[in-house]
Amino acid sequence: MRFKLRPSEDAFYEFFSRAAQNLVKGAEILSELGLAEVDIPSVAERLVDVEHDSDQITHELYNKINSTFVTPFDREDIYRLGSLLDDCMDHIEAVGSLVYLYGLTSLPTLPREMHDLVEVINEQARVTAAAMPGLKGMRGLKDYWVEINRLENAGDRAYRMLLVRLFSGEYDALTVLKMKEVADELEAACDAFEHVANTIETISVKES
Amino acid sequence: MRFKLRPSEDAFYEFFSRAAQNLVKGAEILSELGLAEVDIPSVAERLVDVEHDSDQITHELYNKINSTFVTPFDREDIYRLGSLLDDCMDHIEAVGSLVYLYGLTSLPTLPREMHDLVEVINEQARVTAAAMPGLKGMRGLKDYWVEINRLENAGDRAYRMLLVRLFSGEYDALTVLKMKEVADELEAACDAFEHVANTIETISVKES
Amino acid sequence: MRFKLRPSEDAFYEFFSRAAQNLVKGAEILSELGLAEVDIPSVAERLVDVEHDSDQITHELYNKINSTFVTPFDREDIYRLGSLLDDCMDHIEAVGSLVYLYGLTSLPTLPREMHDLVEVINEQARVTAAAMPGLKGMRGLKDYWVEINRLENAGDRAYRMLLVRLFSGEYDALTVLKMKEVADELEAACDAFEHVANTIETISVKES
Repeated sequence: MRFKLRPSEDAFYEFFSRAAQNLVKGAEILSELGLAEVDIPSVAERLVDVEHDSDQITHELYNKINSTFVTPFDREDIYRLGSLLDDCMDHIEAVGSLVYLYGLTSLPTLPREMHDLVEVINEQARVTAAAMPGLKGMRGLKDYWVEINRLENAGDRAYRMLLVRLFSGEYDALTVLKMKEVADELEAACDAFEHVANTIETISVKES
Repeated sequence: MRFKLRPSEDAFYEFFSRAAQNLVKGAEILSELGLAEVDIPSVAERLVDVEHDSDQITHELYNKINSTFVTPFDREDIYRLGSLLDDCMDHIEAVGSLVYLYGLTSLPTLPREMHDLVEVINEQARVTAAAMPGLKGMRGLKDYWVEINRLENAGDRAYRMLLVRLFSGEYDALTVLKMKEVADELEAACDAFEHVANTIETISVKES
Repeated sequence: MRFKLRPSEDAFYEFFSRAAQNLVKGAEILSELGLAEVDIPSVAERLVDVEHDSDQITHELYNKINSTFVTPFDREDIYRLGSLLDDCMDHIEAVGSLVYLYGLTSLPTLPREMHDLVEVINEQARVTAAAMPGLKGMRGLKDYWVEINRLENAGDRAYRMLLVRLFSGEYDALTVLKMKEVADELEAACDAFEHVANTIETISVKES
């Protein structure tokens, strides 16, 4: 019996791993915003592509939930975790779209504090992807929570310093408003990674 | 026994239907903002009235939960669904209040993209109200989720294009800030309808 | 057996009481922003201190959950309540930081409507702390919910009137943006207290 259930259970862990790997890909594309010769339309377009991949993975996961009799943990928790991983990607994609739509390309460079925040998101994506194999057996997750929390605090600080920079008088009011929207999506991405970690922690509390 | 429980169960479905019908009413009042000869104080006032009706329905639902021994599905899910339907109305009402309080009446017209967003909310309200009778027996809900998700995506696009318009340089900074607040409430209303759909999907996953 | 479990159960209620008492402390420090001779760097610094205390309490609570076999109510609800009490403090601390970081000290005074909102938060903190002993036995909580809801409505009104004031044309666009950030954190604090109350209500529905 146990032997029979395994393949089905493993499929769930694979979905989470694929979703997290896709987030690493998205965060790497986002990093290109820091390059001197960044091609913003291409960044925005490729982010739309990885976001579609993310939607596809989430969709397959939901179908799997509905067609599986025994799930490795509560159905609604699997559902929630899939949905939260998808949220991370939505915010990452939104950053690319907004930078493109608002024409922030005409600025000589985006503020350094914005790149600090992008770097935090890159680390969060890598740490999340590295933790996913530990979901099975709920092993090695404590270091992951500690690290995601540390990164979320670093992200909060970077966000606050970014707003201080935006409000410094260096930029005109409309440019401030546009960059504030981008900053808010970056911060929402940071928070989304923390929500993923919190949900995994809650699941682990329930299962223990 | 089963026969006896029925009337009580039906009462819950009736609360959800009444709440959703009330949202259709609120969304229709909101649409008047697109009329050439809109009476903004009247729109704001009538929205306060339907919001009070919504509070009343939610309050009755909570009392019903507390006085009922067997509920059609988990108590906390009934509670959550009631609270989320109420959130939709809170955001719809807030739009009317803000347009009135900020004196946006002095603008010749609100941007077209804002009306696009109001139209999305109208469709979401109608689709939600149409789905409520299906809650009993969890029937026909898949089309509802698909449609709400499609509408939420349409709402996201309309919101993004509204911000592009607001940040285009056409309006002064304070007017942009005021309309941005209104836009955020409209987007929050769209999201709130999606939360209702997600919660119904989660309940259906649990019950299946 | 029952006798043996008691001390452990009581420990959970004590954590919630300590967390709520700490919120009273934080809210009182926040009130100093209304004083004519306010020392803003000192307010910001002491808020960081009480926020660290709050983190410490939350951390101890999580350890307690993980090391306790029988909890007074669902593990994940205890977890959630601890996390929401911590959120209240995070928003209170953020207000102090932002007022300091944005240099809002150079304004002759902060708008009166901002102090109205701070006063609501003070009342919410006091009402929450007073309700905590009732968690054990789920007694006297109805008055608490009614009062928190009344206060949250008062907070919403104060927030709306604060925005009307900020957008009145009295302040330049960058000052408006800075004060809007502070206003948003104040409103998020009000909402966070309501989330605490909603979670306690949900727990009480489940336990009843």
